[in-house]
Amino acid sequence: MAKLVLSFSMSLDGFIAGPDVSAQLPMGRHGERLHDWMFKAPSDLDRRMAREMSENVGAVLLGRRTFDLGLSHWGGTPYKTPTFVLTHEPLDPLSTKTGTFIFVQAGIESALQQARAAGGGKDIVVMGANLAQQYLKAGLADEIVIQLVPVLLGSGTRLFDHIGDRRIELATTTALPSPSVTHLRFEVVKPGA
Amino acid sequence: MAKLVLSFSMSLDGFIAGPDVSAQLPMGRHGERLHDWMFKAPSDLDRRMAREMSENVGAVLLGRRTFDLGLSHWGGTPYKTPTFVLTHEPLDPLSTKTGTFIFVQAGIESALQQARAAGGGKDIVVMGANLAQQYLKAGLADEIVIQLVPVLLGSGTRLFDHIGDRRIELATTTALPSPSVTHLRFEVVKPGA
Repeated sequence: MAKLVLSFSMSLDGFIAGPDVSAQLPMGRHGERLHDWMFKAPSDLDRRMAREMSENVGAVLLGRRTFDLGLSHWGGTPYKTPTFVLTHEPLDPLSTKTGTFIFVQAGIESALQQARAAGGGKDIVVMGANLAQQYLKAGLADEIVIQLVPVLLGSGTRLFDHIGDRRIELATTTALPSPSVTHLRFEVVKPGA
Repeated sequence: MAKLVLSFSMSLDGFIAGPDVSAQLPMGRHGERLHDWMFKAPSDLDRRMAREMSENVGAVLLGRRTFDLGLSHWGGTPYKTPTFVLTHEPLDPLSTKTGTFIFVQAGIESALQQARAAGGGKDIVVMGANLAQQYLKAGLADEIVIQLVPVLLGSGTRLFDHIGDRRIELATTTALPSPSVTHLRFEVVKPGA
């Protein structure tokens, strides 16, 4: 079954966006710092990791807030795949230059099923901290990919927040440093596995 | 000048102790999980990193709460060096099997000066999240050493909390994975440096 992957650029203090996220500032104050590794002088390793990540994605799961902020600012996701947007509002599918957006009201499990059906066996990637937390808490995440950025933001949106206090064991499968970021990959160890 | 180093075993979600820290449970619930890399089947790399860290320490800075919990439970710190304990209470120096404890009321800068004077040019290590946060916020930390443990604890004591929202840039100097932990080392980039 296609893996559900949470992939985020995160500061050492655990933030994936700065404070005061808005349509004008979708990454919050100082939040764009977290993507410098990709846009300012990426190393060969950085390029390779971004490319491998991108090539392995079959579909994207997105929270509604991330969709609203992202579509107005970036015009879509970094992935040219079908994107399933979790929302409470019934909306028709939307086709843009960067791909198709399908709106799902039936909850995270149904959205994941639909993404897997559309993804051709490739990874399903979650964008947005809130949605990532829901999948983690529900025990549905298979892998966590972190681009660990050597900066302390001090405040903003934490990736790992509100996930309950059940201990979740991981196994480190990748830890590769480049000058501007450390590429980490973890498998989620499923209870009883 | 001797470097001030913050060194912690931290979960991927940023905790250096579990919830409900007490004299009976000084690492909190599930907190001992963070030290498994040292005590359960450490790799050669893990042993080397722990030894190098230990050999380079000239003095230790400790918060009063960490001192109280640590002395009763472990009988001291892992380092056989003079230890300076920040406290509001005037107390006489204490000699134990694991070293000398000097109690400092004059604040974090004075404690750091005294530790540097006692440390013979070697690194000064901070133990205890609260004290580490104070040194970070004051711009006095030179290096951050993280043993990143592949686990999500969900709750507990966060290392990077209450440090203000001034952005602090770091430079990654070490990122070495072993099966049970990833060894990370960062230099704190000083403003104007």
